[in-house]
Amino acid sequence: MSVQAIAWSPSGAVRIVDQRALPEARIERDLESAEAVADAIRTLQVRGAPLIGIAAAMGLVAGTRELRGAPREEFLGRLAELARLLAATRPTAVNLRWALERMARGAAATPGDGAALWDGLRAEATAIWEEDRAMCRRIGEAGLPLVPDGATVLTHCNAGALATGGIGTALAPIYLAHEAGRRVHVFVDETRPVLQGARLTAWELAHAGIACTLIADAAAGSLMRQAKVDLVIVGADRIAANGDFANKIGTYPLAVLSLHHGVPFYCAAPSSTIDAALGDGDGIPIEQRSPDEVKTVAGRPVAPAAVEALNPAFDVTPARYVTGYLTDRGLRKPPFAAD
Amino acid sequence: MSVQAIAWSPSGAVRIVDQRALPEARIERDLESAEAVADAIRTLQVRGAPLIGIAAAMGLVAGTRELRGAPREEFLGRLAELARLLAATRPTAVNLRWALERMARGAAATPGDGAALWDGLRAEATAIWEEDRAMCRRIGEAGLPLVPDGATVLTHCNAGALATGGIGTALAPIYLAHEAGRRVHVFVDETRPVLQGARLTAWELAHAGIACTLIADAAAGSLMRQAKVDLVIVGADRIAANGDFANKIGTYPLAVLSLHHGVPFYCAAPSSTIDAALGDGDGIPIEQRSPDEVKTVAGRPVAPAAVEALNPAFDVTPARYVTGYLTDRGLRKPPFAAD
Repeated sequence: MSVQAIAWSPSGAVRIVDQRALPEARIERDLESAEAVADAIRTLQVRGAPLIGIAAAMGLVAGTRELRGAPREEFLGRLAELARLLAATRPTAVNLRWALERMARGAAATPGDGAALWDGLRAEATAIWEEDRAMCRRIGEAGLPLVPDGATVLTHCNAGALATGGIGTALAPIYLAHEAGRRVHVFVDETRPVLQGARLTAWELAHAGIACTLIADAAAGSLMRQAKVDLVIVGADRIAANGDFANKIGTYPLAVLSLHHGVPFYCAAPSSTIDAALGDGDGIPIEQRSPDEVKTVAGRPVAPAAVEALNPAFDVTPARYVTGYLTDRGLRKPPFAAD
Repeated sequence: MSVQAIAWSPSGAVRIVDQRALPEARIERDLESAEAVADAIRTLQVRGAPLIGIAAAMGLVAGTRELRGAPREEFLGRLAELARLLAATRPTAVNLRWALERMARGAAATPGDGAALWDGLRAEATAIWEEDRAMCRRIGEAGLPLVPDGATVLTHCNAGALATGGIGTALAPIYLAHEAGRRVHVFVDETRPVLQGARLTAWELAHAGIACTLIADAAAGSLMRQAKVDLVIVGADRIAANGDFANKIGTYPLAVLSLHHGVPFYCAAPSSTIDAALGDGDGIPIEQRSPDEVKTVAGRPVAPAAVEALNPAFDVTPARYVTGYLTDRGLRKPPFAAD
């Protein structure tokens, strides 16, 4: 069984698993306001492109609970303010912007004052979440034929249940293969600097009883050279119309290594990750995070305090390295038109 | 000024900088016995292929101080025993075996009992150290033309002053370029799992006043794609006759990325690193270290306790990826004959 990364609390807050605390502790937090959701996204309590879209949509609902008695204009004004706050938390993933725009369109199309608007928003956020869960399963079905009995899959970062509303994107075919009784082995890149592979992917695979081996990111190359990797599946934070995509730093070198060794390399993502307005990957904004994420690990310094560090959170992999895109509409190839 | 990684203590012990404690603390330890040196090598207090050869040679001297009054046979018997102990500490670097064999040959060729043998050994160990220091400088001179004013060099792990008896191997051309007043910028791979780049290379470059930027290992690919790296220089733990070489895990993927992006890729090492008896890299034994080095950072767990991890300390880079070998005999190309 995969874990559940997000839910409504009984009082209508956004209930999350605080992903900073894993694997040492499993802490659930109820985020009562849009500000609390924005803070949780910024500090990586909630991360993963699909999941931050869902969390932001749910955050708009939690943050407007007190406005159910407000007139239409006041409600919509506050909604736009909260959406701007949430949109500014992380620049690279397009799902966040996509979810917020969908919520705004939903509100604009709903007649009435606060109560009606809020009911509509809650239904829309729940729909975004449920659709994501369904998309994860369809991504899994698209990838299932690639994961036969005995397959060894390498993945990077966490594009699993902890990154989505369902069974993940890159991990979805693995969950379904495991469900189908196939033996699958997953090599998990630890994914420095934030260690989402070590902390999250290893944890959720172990939780589901799927065999995995953790490696330093730099060990993937020699595994490929020794022909120990059958295929690579990674997630995506934004896919341009031509198929170039942004994903966690370290994805691009994996793509180069895969091409060099003839290892199939797949990108798995829901349709909400496609930014068809963007011609190619050069236009994707790359979030630069604090150098401290590189210079410290688990709060302890691992480098001299005075040394500079560069910490791009993502890199861009050009489409020519990608064998195929596993999406909720099946195995696709670019170009991707606006949906 | 580069740091000094090893010396004799006034009492004849082997004085080292404990490299596990850097950069948080600079702790010097006097290793009074060969057993203490073996332990220091095994636990990475002393590391770097050239330096562990020097430390082992000096350890034989420190460990036979009490036998200066012993008859020849007893002295040589004990010497062989200590050499076996030291040789067994780490399997991949050939310099360790090379230094121990040279010490044994030196003793065999020296007439007399304990006192004469010991004097000979001390002179031989000191010569190994001094020759290494001189070789580092010649490696630096071989590489100096590759590092013009304004150059940006990427390196992996630590092949600097902390890995040798002198100014390092991969870092030697950088030290000389800096000495010559050239502006050089070094991108330092942090080098998981043991973080020798973050902890040691960043520290010794900062100590010498050389500009550097620390990156996660997985960030090197996107820097190359953005044409921000002029050349790559790495060290080596063992070089086969055909030029295949073993070096810290993560070297091979850097070599693939360099080839893919047209970035010159150099291997820097003293002649003692060449194992001409070995036809190619397939014969190099790869040390597998404890999974705990991957599963914990600075003593804190970063992965679920039950998860398996794979921790090869080295990988092998085939010769065809290497632009040239910076050695104490200049810029060389394979094959390498026995010296």
